[in-house]
Amino acid sequence: MSNVRVGIVGPTGYAGMELVRLVAGHPRMTLVYLAGSGARTGPLDAHLPHLHVLADALPPVEPLDVHKAADLCDLVFVALPSGESGRVAWEIAQAGLDRGVKVIDLSGDLRLPPEAYEAWYGRPPLPREAIAQACYGLPERHRESIREASLVANPGCYATACALAVLPLGNLLADVKGPIVFDAKSGVTGAGRAPKEHLHLGELANDVYPYRVGQHQHTPEIEQALGGAVRVLLTTQLLPIPRGILVCAYIPIPPDEAPMVYDRYASFCEREPFVRLLPDGQLPHIKAVNGTNECHLAVRWDERSRLLQVFTAIDNLGKGAAGQAVQNANLMFGWPEREGLNLVPLWM
Amino acid sequence: MSNVRVGIVGPTGYAGMELVRLVAGHPRMTLVYLAGSGARTGPLDAHLPHLHVLADALPPVEPLDVHKAADLCDLVFVALPSGESGRVAWEIAQAGLDRGVKVIDLSGDLRLPPEAYEAWYGRPPLPREAIAQACYGLPERHRESIREASLVANPGCYATACALAVLPLGNLLADVKGPIVFDAKSGVTGAGRAPKEHLHLGELANDVYPYRVGQHQHTPEIEQALGGAVRVLLTTQLLPIPRGILVCAYIPIPPDEAPMVYDRYASFCEREPFVRLLPDGQLPHIKAVNGTNECHLAVRWDERSRLLQVFTAIDNLGKGAAGQAVQNANLMFGWPEREGLNLVPLWM
Amino acid sequence: MSNVRVGIVGPTGYAGMELVRLVAGHPRMTLVYLAGSGARTGPLDAHLPHLHVLADALPPVEPLDVHKAADLCDLVFVALPSGESGRVAWEIAQAGLDRGVKVIDLSGDLRLPPEAYEAWYGRPPLPREAIAQACYGLPERHRESIREASLVANPGCYATACALAVLPLGNLLADVKGPIVFDAKSGVTGAGRAPKEHLHLGELANDVYPYRVGQHQHTPEIEQALGGAVRVLLTTQLLPIPRGILVCAYIPIPPDEAPMVYDRYASFCEREPFVRLLPDGQLPHIKAVNGTNECHLAVRWDERSRLLQVFTAIDNLGKGAAGQAVQNANLMFGWPEREGLNLVPLWM
Amino acid sequence: MSNVRVGIVGPTGYAGMELVRLVAGHPRMTLVYLAGSGARTGPLDAHLPHLHVLADALPPVEPLDVHKAADLCDLVFVALPSGESGRVAWEIAQAGLDRGVKVIDLSGDLRLPPEAYEAWYGRPPLPREAIAQACYGLPERHRESIREASLVANPGCYATACALAVLPLGNLLADVKGPIVFDAKSGVTGAGRAPKEHLHLGELANDVYPYRVGQHQHTPEIEQALGGAVRVLLTTQLLPIPRGILVCAYIPIPPDEAPMVYDRYASFCEREPFVRLLPDGQLPHIKAVNGTNECHLAVRWDERSRLLQVFTAIDNLGKGAAGQAVQNANLMFGWPEREGLNLVPLWM
Repeated sequence: MSNVRVGIVGPTGYAGMELVRLVAGHPRMTLVYLAGSGARTGPLDAHLPHLHVLADALPPVEPLDVHKAADLCDLVFVALPSGESGRVAWEIAQAGLDRGVKVIDLSGDLRLPPEAYEAWYGRPPLPREAIAQACYGLPERHRESIREASLVANPGCYATACALAVLPLGNLLADVKGPIVFDAKSGVTGAGRAPKEHLHLGELANDVYPYRVGQHQHTPEIEQALGGAVRVLLTTQLLPIPRGILVCAYIPIPPDEAPMVYDRYASFCEREPFVRLLPDGQLPHIKAVNGTNECHLAVRWDERSRLLQVFTAIDNLGKGAAGQAVQNANLMFGWPEREGLNLVPLWM
Repeated sequence: MSNVRVGIVGPTGYAGMELVRLVAGHPRMTLVYLAGSGARTGPLDAHLPHLHVLADALPPVEPLDVHKAADLCDLVFVALPSGESGRVAWEIAQAGLDRGVKVIDLSGDLRLPPEAYEAWYGRPPLPREAIAQACYGLPERHRESIREASLVANPGCYATACALAVLPLGNLLADVKGPIVFDAKSGVTGAGRAPKEHLHLGELANDVYPYRVGQHQHTPEIEQALGGAVRVLLTTQLLPIPRGILVCAYIPIPPDEAPMVYDRYASFCEREPFVRLLPDGQLPHIKAVNGTNECHLAVRWDERSRLLQVFTAIDNLGKGAAGQAVQNANLMFGWPEREGLNLVPLWM
Repeated sequence: MSNVRVGIVGPTGYAGMELVRLVAGHPRMTLVYLAGSGARTGPLDAHLPHLHVLADALPPVEPLDVHKAADLCDLVFVALPSGESGRVAWEIAQAGLDRGVKVIDLSGDLRLPPEAYEAWYGRPPLPREAIAQACYGLPERHRESIREASLVANPGCYATACALAVLPLGNLLADVKGPIVFDAKSGVTGAGRAPKEHLHLGELANDVYPYRVGQHQHTPEIEQALGGAVRVLLTTQLLPIPRGILVCAYIPIPPDEAPMVYDRYASFCEREPFVRLLPDGQLPHIKAVNGTNECHLAVRWDERSRLLQVFTAIDNLGKGAAGQAVQNANLMFGWPEREGLNLVPLWM
Repeated sequence: MSNVRVGIVGPTGYAGMELVRLVAGHPRMTLVYLAGSGARTGPLDAHLPHLHVLADALPPVEPLDVHKAADLCDLVFVALPSGESGRVAWEIAQAGLDRGVKVIDLSGDLRLPPEAYEAWYGRPPLPREAIAQACYGLPERHRESIREASLVANPGCYATACALAVLPLGNLLADVKGPIVFDAKSGVTGAGRAPKEHLHLGELANDVYPYRVGQHQHTPEIEQALGGAVRVLLTTQLLPIPRGILVCAYIPIPPDEAPMVYDRYASFCEREPFVRLLPDGQLPHIKAVNGTNECHLAVRWDERSRLLQVFTAIDNLGKGAAGQAVQNANLMFGWPEREGLNLVPLWM
């Protein structure tokens, strides 16, 4: 039953083109509307030759018309730059209110309370009612609310990878007294497709470096996703590869809980369709989840330092963006969570 | 009707693991047998974590047993190193003769006449009858014979990319008086997965270089695929990327044929399900065909030099190996040629 | 005797920063003036942390003042984008005329006759007298004129690599009847440092593709460097690496000259301080000349196709830009040609 | 006064070839002896074409002869694989005892007490007297002993980058009560040049992953370098680039010391010729120290988590191997510490 009509706003950006790929392969979705805010209109595969194989399934890219989006679609993904995306998502949600249109925004605009947004993004927030209406779309934490939501704020890529490293702790999190350190590394598509000097291959090839340390806007998002009870240090580092996030979380759990903690992770991962606990002795590879919505996770108690160490790997455009958005759509429409998301990565 | 039982010999090599991915996603194939010649046995995803999502569909890897392969399977892909692969394919084909087992060998062992094989591979050839029985599996040239074949020699990656640049000329090829130059570049997976110093990332990163120039074993294969009428210079060059082949062919067609040549390419590509003539002004990107069985092709007449210039891009593991093997299987079983091969690449 | 005072205009671009490195290490040069046309002023190592080790030897970057450059310096390198660079070089040359200031422009602005420039660059040329005064700075061809010149047009990177593949033919070039094909591949710094979408690491990583084929502005430059007697087809292709050019030239020499051609290359390379003929059986690696002014060259007669095949590898920022500019400066000042250019590459 | 005669054992490995480059450029050293333990003998540039420019300064590579090394050389660098290197270094040191030959071993064989070596390297240790004689060569901690030493155990690459992040704390280290976490990432040359599957470019390109976590043999070396008073968690991660180490250290100093801690780092770095404290707001780039002996360091107090965060970047083959070995040699011979080490990196 492939009859949910889908629109994508921003299909030439990195998250947007990934959404096109996922929606085109989803058995219950039909792509009916593609709209951009820029100059790239017409056949999508004229801009993105790898999508030619989908050409017959792709509507032409049009200049964005919020009302048309709300009229044509049952579901709209909005994947524009932060600062523009949330407003568009909110406008479509309002325009489609009576038709019951569902909207998922992939930007950071609807994820934080207005005060936190202004402080961390350095830009005026959207109206409080917009933010209040948006449900934070981390299925592993907010599954039930997402099912009921009509407007979802899709989580950030770093925030997803960090939160998934800690959420399996469950109520043990309350006993974590010290700060949690997230040492996180990301491929370059996390920075968007707009050309900037530091993203030039001549600059980034052969380099790795930290950036925005202590100031990254995903910091408050992680603290919020963890329930607000822990202090977090997020170290963000840029990798000279297109995709993927690897996080190492250092968590000071009470040492006497160490023997039981592996079971907590195991049972969490058993319940969660996209979080996989790696067999003992294996550690996650960024590459092993490329192009998918999977999260690979490894956990170990380090007796030497008496710290719990958790690794997570996701695709920043998969579980960190487009994949998670489709997972959220599956929840919003009451479908199986893995519908359209049984994706097999390339190893090289 | 997913009832053709498939075996893959060599599933931990680069072509083999790609076959696993393609067969697992093919609507008419069921993977029933995985066998290796080396030490890697047991669950395949223990060696290849990215395949975990397929774990339920994967039989364990066993030490190769030719008779078991011939008994269990309707179709066997053999993807071992050259020198070993053809012999195994031939043995399975013989063992499965009465059951009508179909075998596709991805190595170079069954592609050339014995004398040429010995000269270019520097190694004794397989028995003449084995080679005689094998059908050279380039669908764009031998489609009808492939449909009837029970043993197929899947073409080489360079040979495929080069032949596809010239085959659209059709009978005009007879008027090409001078040599055809193929300046070809390949990603590193074309060299196989066995560790060698020159494939070490520390060696190859940031480098590009020619190798085996004038001595590459795909040279006679190309000449044979083009009907033996032209002299060929194949320049092979190694790229510091995992996948993809880009070929630029320089063809001295008679200049007065130049005005009509584009139409020849257009009508060839219209007939061929996997060869796409790019719109005027576009040139192929290796990336745009990654993970697929597509060949992107651009053709231009260069008035300055009076040479026809043709670019082709394929994935060396797709149309250059596993993808083409599945295309051949589709022909051998009488299925639509694109069955199981509507693959959408990642752009990054 | 380190008393030639040097200025560099454009020190934050790729060729410019390489000039800084070379000039700072040159025993007869002292860096006295750094000027940019953009917003980056002040200490150079604030923009380029890798140059911190030179901080004491670096004058601050100032907004460009043509007269100051002409007053302070004995030698000025101008490495601005084409369209701006040649004009600045010409103005400095004029302003420094009575002081005998020498100027080397690294752009394409002064390399071609006005008509050719306009046709290939699509932009109005500089005054005919400026172009007439500039000496084309390919030492292997114009050594004597460079020694006398006060204004040098430093050759293009592709043009250098292509010309060096053919110049050793000497008067045999007159017997080359057919076109010469140059299949050329370049690292991304050849495209400059200004951010553009196609240079984004997310776009270019894992990709290789041809561009501007038959339209590249180095085409007429190569034909001119070869004396105007041959037709040339230049295929330019972008590599996902920072540096390096690899050219394969296919040259239809008269077959009866084949036995003697290796000696022509050997004796040319013996005379030339920066062109190295590789030992028989070796082929050039881009990496082996990175960061240097060397050109590695291999030549082979291909009996099958009856074509002479010549490979050259240079660093597009070395022999293709900054290194060659310093070589030209050495000639202009009457110093040994390798002065300051005994550079040892990193292998990885 | 270039009269110290130098031998290098293992010149075709990654650290060895870097030593060749550094020694050849050192104003007080002359390379007189090159010896390998494997099959690569004869002219070094036959194996390493980038070293051709040094050909006249390179003795041929010979099969190793310990006594010849001790007779010919005043100083020998030994850069063989761990397990073999320390024994060779010890033998040369003994053979050259009366001549006062100085030996620097770049392996891990002489860095740890025998018991720790056996536990972490899983291999029998060298004789206790060998280990006792070797001076651990971290100049920032053992400068005075190195000056007197005739046998130096050059530190490990991770150990150097980690120790340098903490040593500036000085006596404050005694007040660090909790564990220090080192989240460390390294380019692939740290794993040596011997071919292994996981170092294949097809495997490692586009990937990043942790390995040997909690088991890396540099763990006890770091604890020892820090005086044995702190517990350490070392997370080692492999990067798809040739060179460079980036470490982020998380250090639980007493919060009331935070205001003074920057000054400790500043004064340490002022004294140290190769450790550079980056200006406030800058963070280190791996690339900025490539090919050099520099260490770039940034320090920040994170008020949110109340942790001191220190970043260090070094070249694993520079300050992490060959560069540091030359720095140690400078100390052993009483020369200025930066002699021969004023190296300027390439930015791309």
